[in-house]
Amino acid sequence: MSVIQRVIDRMKPGEDIGLDHVGQKGRQRSINPDGSYNLERKTGRLFGNFFLFNWLITTSWTHYSIVLVSVYLLSNIGFGSLYYLLGSENLYGIVGTSEFDKFMSCFFFSCQTFTTVGYGGLHPIGKVASSIAALEAFLGLMVFAVATGTLYGRFSRPKARLKYSSKVIIAPFKGKTSMQFIVANEMNTVYMEMEAKVNISWMEDEGNGKSVRRFQQVKLEIDKITMFPTSWTINHPIDEESALYGKTENDLQKMDIEIFVLLKGFDDTFSQTIYSRQSYTSEQFVWGAKFLRPFGVNSSGKLEMDLTKVGEYEKADIVHLV
Amino acid sequence: MSVIQRVIDRMKPGEDIGLDHVGQKGRQRSINPDGSYNLERKTGRLFGNFFLFNWLITTSWTHYSIVLVSVYLLSNIGFGSLYYLLGSENLYGIVGTSEFDKFMSCFFFSCQTFTTVGYGGLHPIGKVASSIAALEAFLGLMVFAVATGTLYGRFSRPKARLKYSSKVIIAPFKGKTSMQFIVANEMNTVYMEMEAKVNISWMEDEGNGKSVRRFQQVKLEIDKITMFPTSWTINHPIDEESALYGKTENDLQKMDIEIFVLLKGFDDTFSQTIYSRQSYTSEQFVWGAKFLRPFGVNSSGKLEMDLTKVGEYEKADIVHLV
Amino acid sequence: MSVIQRVIDRMKPGEDIGLDHVGQKGRQRSINPDGSYNLERKTGRLFGNFFLFNWLITTSWTHYSIVLVSVYLLSNIGFGSLYYLLGSENLYGIVGTSEFDKFMSCFFFSCQTFTTVGYGGLHPIGKVASSIAALEAFLGLMVFAVATGTLYGRFSRPKARLKYSSKVIIAPFKGKTSMQFIVANEMNTVYMEMEAKVNISWMEDEGNGKSVRRFQQVKLEIDKITMFPTSWTINHPIDEESALYGKTENDLQKMDIEIFVLLKGFDDTFSQTIYSRQSYTSEQFVWGAKFLRPFGVNSSGKLEMDLTKVGEYEKADIVHLV
Amino acid sequence: MSVIQRVIDRMKPGEDIGLDHVGQKGRQRSINPDGSYNLERKTGRLFGNFFLFNWLITTSWTHYSIVLVSVYLLSNIGFGSLYYLLGSENLYGIVGTSEFDKFMSCFFFSCQTFTTVGYGGLHPIGKVASSIAALEAFLGLMVFAVATGTLYGRFSRPKARLKYSSKVIIAPFKGKTSMQFIVANEMNTVYMEMEAKVNISWMEDEGNGKSVRRFQQVKLEIDKITMFPTSWTINHPIDEESALYGKTENDLQKMDIEIFVLLKGFDDTFSQTIYSRQSYTSEQFVWGAKFLRPFGVNSSGKLEMDLTKVGEYEKADIVHLV
Repeated sequence: MSVIQRVIDRMKPGEDIGLDHVGQKGRQRSINPDGSYNLERKTGRLFGNFFLFNWLITTSWTHYSIVLVSVYLLSNIGFGSLYYLLGSENLYGIVGTSEFDKFMSCFFFSCQTFTTVGYGGLHPIGKVASSIAALEAFLGLMVFAVATGTLYGRFSRPKARLKYSSKVIIAPFKGKTSMQFIVANEMNTVYMEMEAKVNISWMEDEGNGKSVRRFQQVKLEIDKITMFPTSWTINHPIDEESALYGKTENDLQKMDIEIFVLLKGFDDTFSQTIYSRQSYTSEQFVWGAKFLRPFGVNSSGKLEMDLTKVGEYEKADIVHLV
Repeated sequence: MSVIQRVIDRMKPGEDIGLDHVGQKGRQRSINPDGSYNLERKTGRLFGNFFLFNWLITTSWTHYSIVLVSVYLLSNIGFGSLYYLLGSENLYGIVGTSEFDKFMSCFFFSCQTFTTVGYGGLHPIGKVASSIAALEAFLGLMVFAVATGTLYGRFSRPKARLKYSSKVIIAPFKGKTSMQFIVANEMNTVYMEMEAKVNISWMEDEGNGKSVRRFQQVKLEIDKITMFPTSWTINHPIDEESALYGKTENDLQKMDIEIFVLLKGFDDTFSQTIYSRQSYTSEQFVWGAKFLRPFGVNSSGKLEMDLTKVGEYEKADIVHLV
Repeated sequence: MSVIQRVIDRMKPGEDIGLDHVGQKGRQRSINPDGSYNLERKTGRLFGNFFLFNWLITTSWTHYSIVLVSVYLLSNIGFGSLYYLLGSENLYGIVGTSEFDKFMSCFFFSCQTFTTVGYGGLHPIGKVASSIAALEAFLGLMVFAVATGTLYGRFSRPKARLKYSSKVIIAPFKGKTSMQFIVANEMNTVYMEMEAKVNISWMEDEGNGKSVRRFQQVKLEIDKITMFPTSWTINHPIDEESALYGKTENDLQKMDIEIFVLLKGFDDTFSQTIYSRQSYTSEQFVWGAKFLRPFGVNSSGKLEMDLTKVGEYEKADIVHLV
Repeated sequence: MSVIQRVIDRMKPGEDIGLDHVGQKGRQRSINPDGSYNLERKTGRLFGNFFLFNWLITTSWTHYSIVLVSVYLLSNIGFGSLYYLLGSENLYGIVGTSEFDKFMSCFFFSCQTFTTVGYGGLHPIGKVASSIAALEAFLGLMVFAVATGTLYGRFSRPKARLKYSSKVIIAPFKGKTSMQFIVANEMNTVYMEMEAKVNISWMEDEGNGKSVRRFQQVKLEIDKITMFPTSWTINHPIDEESALYGKTENDLQKMDIEIFVLLKGFDDTFSQTIYSRQSYTSEQFVWGAKFLRPFGVNSSGKLEMDLTKVGEYEKADIVHLV
């Protein structure tokens, strides 16, 4: 029975990583460096898979601010226009003789209503203007309710600020060889009960000119740590069962390797389970190297971690290649 | 020992799906297509099992908006009436000579107080009107506090937007037969660590003219996937232990089959565990078909999923019927 | 080896229910009917184990409303007094000649500032009054921020509305005897993946005039259900390993039995794990009875559950007493 | 095979506590008494690992209040200066003849706009002042939205208020010796499903003048309790596999022992998983002692816990030292 067969057998009826669709040549990488999925979705609907709140929570601060300011401006331009069209006899306090000045008075009255600041220097006269103002003040409060909720949502959503080494190294390890990368905690939060899952995928020749993508969840020296305050060198000892066993640097390029990393932990500042995804491709492999420790004890005896040093390595001989 | 007996034995002392009450003929389906439970609850209390917040969170946007607007209107009609009944000497700025105009002034004053816009063109005179206004402004703020909370609750509650195939197919699979349906992720969110549980329920003749409903949790080829970015074909290989083993299309109709699907996963945008429920009945079975893949790699090498194609199938011969 | 010894062995090094302190005679029941713990805590600190937010979230609506209204009233009495003491020349719009009327004007100005309604009919004159008003408006907004947060906290906190039968019955079950109680879901929410843990505690004579409290986690016929839409009869078959094996109704009284029930599930409306605690004492036992089913299929084929019938039972012979 | 070797073997491929960096002499303790991690992080970025919301949520109430008040004051000084620089003809209602008085009017107008109180005694004239005011009211509402969110975040974040005994005792236990400490629940909340993990770390001589830090996850008599209403004596029986086996009080000092405690539980008031960390060093060991029970049943039969007595102990002979 081949190693691959054993690997496949080991995966049944167990767990799949939901990635069998990446089994085609010439594809782009599956997971972007920022952890998002490199995928396009066609929905056949006008707004597709757009969900307002999810977008407001996950978009950049720049986009979010533009949306907030636009809603404020457009609402006031809209309501301002309504008051203006009603005629200046419906608002007390309109100043200016030009039409633009009158419109601006209406616009500012709208702002004062929407934000409920309501100085009163401008105020509605008559039932129609008063009704519109009553509606606008209500809508204004609703908009600020949504802003409050989305701001909280943005702030409180799970954040796993982890710094991954830019390279995967093939390193000497206890007289054998292992594949390693390093990940560091960038937050002051101590993540609890971290778990790592690492999958290797590669193209395999099926003999008839066709090749097929294979997957293997690899064994890790340590796949769980109770606390994650600093950094973690994730270490896959390359033993006989590993898909990397006996391979050369050259083989790796041909195999079109992609490494999928999934980390899971618990952020007890916010009582949230956090996930972090990463992928490495063949070009990110370094043969014969050793990561430098990014932390040490400083002169006052306090532990110190230097995040800028996470992923730094030095050359090392691999003692045992097969 | 019959297969059924073995199945029942296997379920003890294990897990039950909480559905033994569906064991009667002529019943409607247990789970509605939207995932809700087809059940009526009698409580013997006036408001029954009505819990305000749960309702405000789970009701449709239409109902929610109607409630919000109604609370606003009714509060202002109520407080407006109070000010009106007090007499117009208690409000500065009342205009109009007809009683209706005076009431409307009171109504608008109420709106300006409830939203705390308080222009001041209208303001209370005297201790009684001022006291009522002080109360109304307080209540208004409380109502907007509830609106803020319920809007956030509505937006942030767990959403599993999954698209299920409308059919369950009986398909060829590795030289044997399997039951399959497909489910796709409609969100940009990548759900993590999805698990599937599928139960079959059917009516069984007990011999004495009575029949009883039986349940079986069926084996799945893959019952867990680590990441769920695109779609998942859930596959029950029909082996000797399956309640479907050796059955014909006709048998299934007689057995009054219902398939219960429960999916569980983790939405790491909101750090929430999500569940999705679905049921299929005999009429949704298609014999001898194969699902088409709803995704592929497009010309630029990027993975693309077409949600409109989820559940599309083509005819296929079942190689092995028993 | 006695049954008890085996039971105790089975519990080691496993799980304890955190209740060994209830091992004294003459004690009150450990868990109140509302699921709270019957315990007094002495802290040696002035405010003891009082945490403001926890209290605001968990107290009754009556207490919560009283606190809110009191904060509003007392703040305005306080700030109103400050404005009054400053002198009426610091507020524009003070009316009335009596000192009480002047104070009331100050009080209403305070209300209008605290709620930010700010009509302006009353407004501050001079730097001192303006400064106090600027502070008050800021504090008012902070108070309403806390109100918004606590209202949301109250509404969104996990609620397991379960109705327990008022009795535990000793019932015939598959030709043997079992201990049963019933629990029903009062919400429209379908709780997912419910688990039950039932512990029996009893006093045992140690022979030397002393007696000691023992605990046993009992075996349940079904201890997990996947979905909990309606009701669940929790069933402990009294076999040789059970502490109740061979006991009579009279024995139970002497043993000072208390049954501890812990249910755990998942409310997927709010993505929250919910727990429910209950305890039963000897007086709540009924010998020889059978629970009636609280649900059925109505004339239109729809499942119907009657919550008022949960816990109703009829007399039944126990076939097998030992 | 030495005990240590067996211990290390037992930890593979299992769990690591993420603390191998503490393996240096002369270091400070790893976990501060308040449960935080004694670690310094260098990031090479200007704001380092500073995340605004995390800081606003986790900082002290004093710092939080200072930030809130500063934002309010500085915003109003800023906007007030803008209005002042525009000139007094742009604000209606400016009083005073000195420049300082005019600035203060502008400052108070700013406060009235920022809080949306908007009395109107002061109000903007002209397009420039009105535009700035429209912006300020909008920003003011955003600031209060952030305040609402952060207040809620502060209140609702997981709190494990546990009181640990200040000492670890080496106590007689069932005719042998055990290491014990006690932890009590300070809240009225009953924590559910508590789990304890205890690791011992010590320096070990490697023979060549170098010493290395070792870790052992120790066996506990009870490592899980279902409910945690009162207190829990965490008990490590010192058997042959324990790193403490056969050690004397003197040995412990030389070994530079540090005990790491991790407790995990579930707070069902807020549906949050909570963690609590603690460490003990050699100086906190007491040889030959027994903890006193911090609870009892009072005269009315009600259970009573005295938190001030948690950790009190009396001298006791250790029956069995090896």
